[in-house]
Amino acid sequence: MAQILRDRIDKDGKVLNDRVLKVDSFLNHQVDPHLIMSLGQAFADHFKDRQVTKVLTLEASGIHIAFATALRLDIPFVFAKKRPASTQQGSGVYTAEVESFTRGQTCSITVSKDYITSEDRILIIDDFLAAGNAALGLISVVRQANAEIVGVGIAVEKSFQTGRKRLEDEGIEVLSLARLKSMDPATGVEYVKE
Amino acid sequence: MAQILRDRIDKDGKVLNDRVLKVDSFLNHQVDPHLIMSLGQAFADHFKDRQVTKVLTLEASGIHIAFATALRLDIPFVFAKKRPASTQQGSGVYTAEVESFTRGQTCSITVSKDYITSEDRILIIDDFLAAGNAALGLISVVRQANAEIVGVGIAVEKSFQTGRKRLEDEGIEVLSLARLKSMDPATGVEYVKE
Repeated sequence: MAQILRDRIDKDGKVLNDRVLKVDSFLNHQVDPHLIMSLGQAFADHFKDRQVTKVLTLEASGIHIAFATALRLDIPFVFAKKRPASTQQGSGVYTAEVESFTRGQTCSITVSKDYITSEDRILIIDDFLAAGNAALGLISVVRQANAEIVGVGIAVEKSFQTGRKRLEDEGIEVLSLARLKSMDPATGVEYVKE
Repeated sequence: MAQILRDRIDKDGKVLNDRVLKVDSFLNHQVDPHLIMSLGQAFADHFKDRQVTKVLTLEASGIHIAFATALRLDIPFVFAKKRPASTQQGSGVYTAEVESFTRGQTCSITVSKDYITSEDRILIIDDFLAAGNAALGLISVVRQANAEIVGVGIAVEKSFQTGRKRLEDEGIEVLSLARLKSMDPATGVEYVKE
């Protein structure tokens, strides 16, 4: 399954510079639903014996990957909502502040207390892992609910950034389907050998 | 298929007042993936002989429904992105201004010119139809690209608002799976008889 994603990145991804890979023709603007089902199957296969009760992601571009994973695991998914950092949140939600790597802004992410409880075992899914801020925000939300984090599933990991290390330092397993070691507009993507 | 959604609304929807139905336990915060697959199947069944080339929706809560529909039609989907109305857009995108019914704000929605062309036959999908502003924004984007609009598929239509009429006045077919005639916190939802 991971090979399918790497092949697609090699074919249709666009390396804009040594930090930015554009995948908006198949992953996060236009979307190939069959590719996404393959990614969901890969996450489901890996975590299927871990009693996951819910998949958690962040709107917007994690939603379809979380959906495919949840469908294959036969459980619901929840997508955290983004709000401007100043928005009044109320007492009915868990919230965390997340700094966006690409936009240089901070936003609040919120999840209703109704949908994560201390009984839950949560698999976090997202499209990209870079500095890890989004994933750490979701982890904070899960921990506020006293739920268990089973692991984090990522489509594309920028392994030259610190996200994976920050999650592993928290004791959290990370499964990334494509791990980018380096990128160059002239020569393309080099992957981490596993 | 439509009956599945109405049954679920009757079971798990919460009528907050005569204008607001909360469906965030199964449709737009926590999501039941099997229900969404049923909705996607219903849209695909209805539009399957209409040579749809792409499904178009608006982030965030249309994404999973568009995904399920596109998977069943075996075509890609595109999700338009929301930006603050003031954001610089650039020449590479189609854009439209959309006023949000629930939040009283205006935002810009954008779609890359790479992903809708004059060859496309577009099915628009969204979770709610109320005043119709989001759908009309998507229609504007499709028309800027000189693409064809095959129809609009909606999960929950607030039939006491003007959205359907505004779309039909544009000559556009609307398929809504649950048409709310009226709502009352005491007695629940009454549907349009079809």
